[in-house]
Amino acid sequence: MNISVLGCGRWGTFLAWYVHKVGHNVMLWGRENSRNYIGLKETRKNDYLPLPEDIVLCNSLEKAVSFAEMIIISISAQELRSFANQLSSINEIDGKTFILCMKGLESASGKRLSQVFGEEIGKKINLAVWVGPGHVQDFVNHIPNCMVIGSENVDITKKIVQEFSSDLIRFYYGQDLIGNEIGAATKNVMGIAAGMLDGFNYSSLKGSLMARGTREISRLVRAMGGNDITIYGLSHLGDYEATLFSEHSHNRKFGKAFVEGERFGKLAEGVSTVRALRELSKQYDVELPICSAIYEILFDDKNAKETLEDLFLRPVKFEF
Amino acid sequence: MNISVLGCGRWGTFLAWYVHKVGHNVMLWGRENSRNYIGLKETRKNDYLPLPEDIVLCNSLEKAVSFAEMIIISISAQELRSFANQLSSINEIDGKTFILCMKGLESASGKRLSQVFGEEIGKKINLAVWVGPGHVQDFVNHIPNCMVIGSENVDITKKIVQEFSSDLIRFYYGQDLIGNEIGAATKNVMGIAAGMLDGFNYSSLKGSLMARGTREISRLVRAMGGNDITIYGLSHLGDYEATLFSEHSHNRKFGKAFVEGERFGKLAEGVSTVRALRELSKQYDVELPICSAIYEILFDDKNAKETLEDLFLRPVKFEF
Repeated sequence: MNISVLGCGRWGTFLAWYVHKVGHNVMLWGRENSRNYIGLKETRKNDYLPLPEDIVLCNSLEKAVSFAEMIIISISAQELRSFANQLSSINEIDGKTFILCMKGLESASGKRLSQVFGEEIGKKINLAVWVGPGHVQDFVNHIPNCMVIGSENVDITKKIVQEFSSDLIRFYYGQDLIGNEIGAATKNVMGIAAGMLDGFNYSSLKGSLMARGTREISRLVRAMGGNDITIYGLSHLGDYEATLFSEHSHNRKFGKAFVEGERFGKLAEGVSTVRALRELSKQYDVELPICSAIYEILFDDKNAKETLEDLFLRPVKFEF
Repeated sequence: MNISVLGCGRWGTFLAWYVHKVGHNVMLWGRENSRNYIGLKETRKNDYLPLPEDIVLCNSLEKAVSFAEMIIISISAQELRSFANQLSSINEIDGKTFILCMKGLESASGKRLSQVFGEEIGKKINLAVWVGPGHVQDFVNHIPNCMVIGSENVDITKKIVQEFSSDLIRFYYGQDLIGNEIGAATKNVMGIAAGMLDGFNYSSLKGSLMARGTREISRLVRAMGGNDITIYGLSHLGDYEATLFSEHSHNRKFGKAFVEGERFGKLAEGVSTVRALRELSKQYDVELPICSAIYEILFDDKNAKETLEDLFLRPVKFEF
């Protein structure tokens, strides 16, 4: 099958590599003037992998869209709305299947990425998300993992899974798009919290963080109309190893660097998600103590150590 | 308050140290001929901590029981039945509060430790469990954690929490004794599984292990009459950092050594728990795929790598 991957950052480039490896014809799109695109064009590799010769690099969205039956998108979550708007002007998108392989929420509105995409695209397309654990560094070293494809149409889900499954990535069918998207986005916030705990030598409190973090996000998902058990599956809890513990986790490293007073150069998507959660907490009237604490530390200059101690070591009470 | 701690292994000795630190008068009991007891008697310390001078070491059960209002027990889980039988002959136990600070199940019967204890003791006592995350090595380095006290009588739970809470250990009230005990015991089995994954360089599959491990134990707890959400609290999921990730985890180290073909000298309580779970799976007609796989690896000589790959990388399906 012909597949296009839109976005040639770390994940997008990996996805092109992976989908090609599984046996598809692949076109990888990037912005002409982006650092990643220029680097790939010049060297046919990035920091993580070499790009196989028969993956076509291109910078024309029209070309990338018209080439493919299925189109995977992996760009910065906060840019999705304007990107979708750009895509909506391409007539050929009609009837195609789009797969969002990104973890985030629209910062200002709290909207899920499939909502944002659907609002802007305004055409009859199939839409799915690809979430769950796994680091590029592990996959390219042949270390397998399990991930989730979710959509509102189980036939679409099954078709995508069928095309993309391999020994390297085993896919499960997601059955709750709200839960899968909220879960995938919010695990980054727990990753930032985990990094902060690591930074204060409170790593052992990551046990409490896991128990209480899943609980508060589960309450949010239920309030939003999702299934409160989804959070305990691959898209959220199943991604905690990769996000709360792994050396490769950007969000964990961001949180650690933040409390150690260092600058962390790379994108930590969880920062935008924290803002979105502030919004969702209000909209759905759900208390999110951990997410709120991280918000106050990041944006209100609250003392990180005191705030986390207050959160995790406050006086006794019932657990739930 | 006068407190006795029965059992002077790593945990028992720590508990005596901790309860003394909180401000109680403490007696620490051990078997006269046990290596731990002899070591403490001679040196007043073990590998983890020095024993404060005013903790009384004793080897008479009668004396330890009659001294204390609350009695904490921390011995090997498989020895609890005979130990409780021994205690039952002491008249003075009537009306005292016993707190089991141990994580396990009776191997042959699958019974919870509070059941085993209650069956043998046959007198009117108060009974509670003390479970949740935390390593002795962290606590003695002033790294705090959150734990759980559970019993069938919330007034007893509250009284124990009131006596034992400190800046070092924050206690929550457990509200589901079945869930807390099953959760505390079974996290050791997930710890063994985690160690095996680590041993095969499949650490990234610990995400899947967390998602699916919690799920299968949750189903068991529900079948046993407990609350299926308890597993996602401190006594099980909240103990995963300490058990699936920590360098200090005996069960994780045991699993890793097992698949690497090395001998691991220390007790891994999870091994007995795996046997108990085989029994519970039959009694309650609940499938426990991860626990069964670990059983077959440990006791039926099944190939560990193939069994784990089959478990975590089998063909696609719905997640739940």
